[in-house]
Amino acid sequence: MDRWTRRVEALTDGVFAIATTLLVLNLAVRSGLQHHEFLAALRALGPKVLAYVVSFLVIAVYWIGHHNQFFWIRRVDRRLIWITTFFLMAIAFIPFSTSLIADYPNEVPAVLIYGTNVILAGLALLVHWRYASGPGKLVPQPMDPRVSAITSRRIVLGIAFYAVGTLLAFVSPIISVVLFAGLPLPYFMKSSEIDRRIKEQQAALEHSPASRRRSG
Amino acid sequence: MDRWTRRVEALTDGVFAIATTLLVLNLAVRSGLQHHEFLAALRALGPKVLAYVVSFLVIAVYWIGHHNQFFWIRRVDRRLIWITTFFLMAIAFIPFSTSLIADYPNEVPAVLIYGTNVILAGLALLVHWRYASGPGKLVPQPMDPRVSAITSRRIVLGIAFYAVGTLLAFVSPIISVVLFAGLPLPYFMKSSEIDRRIKEQQAALEHSPASRRRSG
Amino acid sequence: MDRWTRRVEALTDGVFAIATTLLVLNLAVRSGLQHHEFLAALRALGPKVLAYVVSFLVIAVYWIGHHNQFFWIRRVDRRLIWITTFFLMAIAFIPFSTSLIADYPNEVPAVLIYGTNVILAGLALLVHWRYASGPGKLVPQPMDPRVSAITSRRIVLGIAFYAVGTLLAFVSPIISVVLFAGLPLPYFMKSSEIDRRIKEQQAALEHSPASRRRSG
Amino acid sequence: MDRWTRRVEALTDGVFAIATTLLVLNLAVRSGLQHHEFLAALRALGPKVLAYVVSFLVIAVYWIGHHNQFFWIRRVDRRLIWITTFFLMAIAFIPFSTSLIADYPNEVPAVLIYGTNVILAGLALLVHWRYASGPGKLVPQPMDPRVSAITSRRIVLGIAFYAVGTLLAFVSPIISVVLFAGLPLPYFMKSSEIDRRIKEQQAALEHSPASRRRSG
Repeated sequence: MDRWTRRVEALTDGVFAIATTLLVLNLAVRSGLQHHEFLAALRALGPKVLAYVVSFLVIAVYWIGHHNQFFWIRRVDRRLIWITTFFLMAIAFIPFSTSLIADYPNEVPAVLIYGTNVILAGLALLVHWRYASGPGKLVPQPMDPRVSAITSRRIVLGIAFYAVGTLLAFVSPIISVVLFAGLPLPYFMKSSEIDRRIKEQQAALEHSPASRRRSG
Repeated sequence: MDRWTRRVEALTDGVFAIATTLLVLNLAVRSGLQHHEFLAALRALGPKVLAYVVSFLVIAVYWIGHHNQFFWIRRVDRRLIWITTFFLMAIAFIPFSTSLIADYPNEVPAVLIYGTNVILAGLALLVHWRYASGPGKLVPQPMDPRVSAITSRRIVLGIAFYAVGTLLAFVSPIISVVLFAGLPLPYFMKSSEIDRRIKEQQAALEHSPASRRRSG
Repeated sequence: MDRWTRRVEALTDGVFAIATTLLVLNLAVRSGLQHHEFLAALRALGPKVLAYVVSFLVIAVYWIGHHNQFFWIRRVDRRLIWITTFFLMAIAFIPFSTSLIADYPNEVPAVLIYGTNVILAGLALLVHWRYASGPGKLVPQPMDPRVSAITSRRIVLGIAFYAVGTLLAFVSPIISVVLFAGLPLPYFMKSSEIDRRIKEQQAALEHSPASRRRSG
Repeated sequence: MDRWTRRVEALTDGVFAIATTLLVLNLAVRSGLQHHEFLAALRALGPKVLAYVVSFLVIAVYWIGHHNQFFWIRRVDRRLIWITTFFLMAIAFIPFSTSLIADYPNEVPAVLIYGTNVILAGLALLVHWRYASGPGKLVPQPMDPRVSAITSRRIVLGIAFYAVGTLLAFVSPIISVVLFAGLPLPYFMKSSEIDRRIKEQQAALEHSPASRRRSG
């Protein structure tokens, strides 16, 4: 792995770490409240804490998705860095759109902004993979076409799910919010196909003379 | 150490660095105060500064605990990453629960939220170790069962301590706060057992041909 | 790459990751607004979101510029670290000057501060390269003079562009803002000259015995 | 360099990157001001910008000091990590004490808090070096006693300077503030002694078979 690849990973990890941690700044209770005001303020935080948890998981899903791509990516070029920039711009925006949906779960525009934000991050990740595994030739050649297709499909499914959830805001924003909260769940499960191929590849590398190049 | 392991460490270090540093945002003095108002504002900061110090130490204890586990962990899988996500979610929440306890040390709910937060981080770290050293097989096999047991016990003790401290809030929240402030102290001392085993392992590795794989 | 070089990169990546992510803190909508107030607040955010996007891209341009220099830089010395400090000081200031220009796009001083901030970052990056490739001898010797000249020229062009944009604030601040928004665009395109030389160098290194030293 | 040493560096770099970048949060201009109010608000920011620059440099001085120690440190133990924790606790506190001195440069307590904060960071760094180069035996043995002494002396001088500056607050806080602003300047100059020895050591390592162990 060359220096540029390593630094793109470092910048990405930094932005992800900060974006998740900044989510907590949406939570606050004014000081100097009386006992009953304090209890009311805590109760009012309920939806914000839920939004904190959900967005934390959404960002984690994207982080894992980015890592899964970088498992294959061997080098980066200027185009990939610009795609990464737009991806990170969408990720870094999530604390703000999370604050909107936490404060205004009944407002259609809040749901539209949150959904669009998550979808844009997904689109950037899709372009990232399509470019790296396609014209950019940043993965080992020839690339197993099934790995390439499964990776894309997984992102497209997530985008489709969020697009449906976002559009349902016109029926009822609360339906969207409930769907958004449920999205990360399927990503918890082992993606047997992707994980099996990564494992095979890892095993193959460990027994090849090129393995030293990948570690470190 | 493979790339995924390295990036999990990088993300973890990032979240810990930010969580500790965000603690300082709980400290603020309005500008434009008169001399006596300024002095009063500084005095009112006293408990907040104490909370800053205590939570900084609590987060450091968890960081060291996480590192001690990663000393043994050789690779990560999807499940461990999800456990890590919940662990980091609890760590990143600490600046908020610290602000509650700093502003409302006499309020039972503030103490309950802070205690629960720290306990959840401990439980995530316990699950992390149980999984990595057990079914996940992410540590060298066979793992010394005593190292495994000591590591778990240390976390369980901390959780138990915090659980007692949290429950005592129903007697008096101030007792809880005093106990919370004292918790990190025992972790300062050398854990002779864990540290001795890590040292033995380090010495063994330095003389083994596999040592190169761990450095870097 | 020695330890100091690696840590300068790590600190730089950290400051860049945080500076980009802090940009989002300029975006906020008060809670508790009525439907029409909420819509008005969102509309008022328009210029701030644009400023977020533009400053994110400006910071990314500088990050890539810094990386391109570090592609050649083999070691760092105390002087380079101090130059880096001033460079990072200007980068970390961008979230503030962005908030000024987002809130006050019609105010000449806001535009002057933003433009000066970006120009100072550019000057620091120029001094960084002139020192590293010149008296500091921190790049491989002898350094291809054309690479050195192209790198400088690219930075000087950016500074000149921003200087013109900034001075036009005295005619109309809005003209400056529009120019500032357009600046990152040319940097999207492949810098065929710089990238071709980096590629040649990478290819040369991969076939040389010194290649191991660069990977890391 | 083992994994623990690397992670201590990573956490340290993270906290430093965040502490410097958070300094900018002390700068803010309310939105919606009229032209003359806006100009007045900018003028009022003058001392805050100065405080931003000075604290950025102070933190950079400490970062370089920490790095210079880690140039020699080969491994870390639990005690060093706790010393590091207190060091980082003082560093992460600087954005707050900077906001105090920027808002209240005429207030003795503000100056005392800022000075004490910087002194505590210096003391932690001194204990760090004394322990690592002394009883901790974390540096190559035998350690050149002159390197050890120069490193300590440099930190002690800084602490003494700040102690004098802090105490002068009882005469006039403005004198303290001016001295604080001047402190980082001498650290800009090449520390010919330290740098020469580090260079010698680097040259020696490059020609020794152990050099591979330090890179990477």
